[in-house]
Amino acid sequence: MLVSAVKLINFRRFSRLEVNEFHPQLNVIVGKNAQGKTSILESLSLVTQLESFRSSDVSELIKYGEIQASCTVDLNAPTKSRVLIGLENKKKSIRIDETKISSKSKYSLLGTSVTFVPDDLYLIKGGPEARRKFFVQLAINLDPSSVQIYQQYEKNLKQRNRILKGMKEGDHLGDQLEIWTDQFIGAAVQVYEQRFKILERLREVLPSIYQKLFDVSESIEILHDHGFDENLPDRDSIARRMSRLRGAETAIGYSLVGPHRDDFKFNLNSLNARQFASQGQTRSLVIALKISQLELTREDAYSSPLLLLDDIVSELDETRTLALVSYLADYDGQLFVTTAESSKLKTLHSQFASFKLIDLTEDSKIVRRLDVRELSV
Amino acid sequence: MLVSAVKLINFRRFSRLEVNEFHPQLNVIVGKNAQGKTSILESLSLVTQLESFRSSDVSELIKYGEIQASCTVDLNAPTKSRVLIGLENKKKSIRIDETKISSKSKYSLLGTSVTFVPDDLYLIKGGPEARRKFFVQLAINLDPSSVQIYQQYEKNLKQRNRILKGMKEGDHLGDQLEIWTDQFIGAAVQVYEQRFKILERLREVLPSIYQKLFDVSESIEILHDHGFDENLPDRDSIARRMSRLRGAETAIGYSLVGPHRDDFKFNLNSLNARQFASQGQTRSLVIALKISQLELTREDAYSSPLLLLDDIVSELDETRTLALVSYLADYDGQLFVTTAESSKLKTLHSQFASFKLIDLTEDSKIVRRLDVRELSV
Repeated sequence: MLVSAVKLINFRRFSRLEVNEFHPQLNVIVGKNAQGKTSILESLSLVTQLESFRSSDVSELIKYGEIQASCTVDLNAPTKSRVLIGLENKKKSIRIDETKISSKSKYSLLGTSVTFVPDDLYLIKGGPEARRKFFVQLAINLDPSSVQIYQQYEKNLKQRNRILKGMKEGDHLGDQLEIWTDQFIGAAVQVYEQRFKILERLREVLPSIYQKLFDVSESIEILHDHGFDENLPDRDSIARRMSRLRGAETAIGYSLVGPHRDDFKFNLNSLNARQFASQGQTRSLVIALKISQLELTREDAYSSPLLLLDDIVSELDETRTLALVSYLADYDGQLFVTTAESSKLKTLHSQFASFKLIDLTEDSKIVRRLDVRELSV
Repeated sequence: MLVSAVKLINFRRFSRLEVNEFHPQLNVIVGKNAQGKTSILESLSLVTQLESFRSSDVSELIKYGEIQASCTVDLNAPTKSRVLIGLENKKKSIRIDETKISSKSKYSLLGTSVTFVPDDLYLIKGGPEARRKFFVQLAINLDPSSVQIYQQYEKNLKQRNRILKGMKEGDHLGDQLEIWTDQFIGAAVQVYEQRFKILERLREVLPSIYQKLFDVSESIEILHDHGFDENLPDRDSIARRMSRLRGAETAIGYSLVGPHRDDFKFNLNSLNARQFASQGQTRSLVIALKISQLELTREDAYSSPLLLLDDIVSELDETRTLALVSYLADYDGQLFVTTAESSKLKTLHSQFASFKLIDLTEDSKIVRRLDVRELSV
């Protein structure tokens, strides 16, 4: 996927912003804090994933005081196309070359993206929801239609929790619970099967990416912490566990079994990274995880995914920045990087012969476009 | 509290290590990774807190293959004393000037310490257990005798969970559960009262420390997320909630109510920092939290606590390192800092006229002692 231009109207802090002639390899967006650097990446995430990496609430993307916003992106590859995402009333509409598109899975042929944002640095030491989210994103990267599996699961979970909450408050909804539990188990099995496949693939690539990138020999294990005895929970084992916890669920008012309660454990040399990894190991592992996501996505995608890198370089030490940047220099997809420190341009310049610089000035309205030849780095 | 010397025998990787003549203000321990820098801080944490900040398992502190270890620390203030901690068979023994000490609370008169380690950087964006641990540490800093409140609570929780687990497996232990629930509620009330007082004090100091240190006007709120309607849960409300969840607890086999399930929420300008804070804000908030811990501890302690700073400076950007170091330069207690990068010495040197450098050579046996005058920084 190759993006040539983006136009934002009433999007986040921009009344209107146009950037044309993106570089086919590296684009660097510089500017102070709160100048809208991240919003540009967000618009590309919206176009590729139909969701911002910062918020699932459409109304947050619309400029304060406005009722509509839009984000138009011109592509040069896989086909020359114009994609328009309209935002209004918590809803998104999608048009490709003037044709209205209704289904997300059809849309995915155009291409996808992988994001790397500062909060990803908490993947290992943060709470389990960050790790679950990583696996959901990877699943959708690898197979865009699997978004339906997750949507189905979320819907069943919500419905089942509604019933359990009613029962906790004294309603007699036992029959309804049976019906929804059955559907819920069906959806849970699909999620577990999906996770099982993804884990298998991640186990194949992550250790070698980690070892090569940082020139270490530490072993990596990835464990799926779902509380079942077998690797892949099936219909029967889920049903058994649910019936054992039925009393607890009706008393507490929500579902205690299922993939929404999972965690994932990373072991470095057989020690749990969450507890024992040093800062350096933690960061190396996060970089290796994100690059694994990118590599696996590239294997499966119709075209190389966009990589959206939000201000991450400033959070990394020199060794890790260099490992990451030299990997990126060999990446055959398009890169969009934001940074608040123009000094970081030097590191990028050492690995990339040319790139496009988008410099957001203080009023965030005017965009200067500089070629790297104009820079005295 | 003023430490003049430390002697370690069979402690972590050291067969024997002696450092004498510590600097009354700043001591910097340099060395490559895995040379034992952190272990020296750990020994000071053991002497002041009777616990390592890295592990609660005594056997991990004893050198591999040995059965005993010891850590001897000489103090110049509050009194000229020698403290010896012996480690053997998962047990600690304490001697002050040859006299055996049995109770932790008596011991606290000598002084305490505050640690700042890389994992603290996950305080805001990590899971709730890190935040709960912070509040427990602060409680014990402020009132060493409150360690008994937490120990009592942990003991009751463990016992109650044991009974609930038995009931889940079909044992008839309803009577025992009643007795232990009553004790459990008593301990929980004490923990909640403790937390309420600590929160009140933290709310007084944290916002101004954050604003002054980083020259910003962002507002900070700290919310205690315990799921009760009132600010301070009392015996009745805890009992009511527990009886409502009794069915769930016996079905799931562990306690669903109590301070072990709490979380704490930090709002920056009314937005939840866990979700919305930038990397920069997150780090500033963590530094402000740790300095608040130090300040409050200093207010209450018999003498200024030791500050044990483990390799934190290398994780911070220049602005934040400078904010922290210039605060430290005014701190009237003794500081122990580790770093793997000798380039960081320059930043420290810019704020401290002199300090002591402990350089762990590669075999970790010999310690060179240099005065700052010998350094060409």
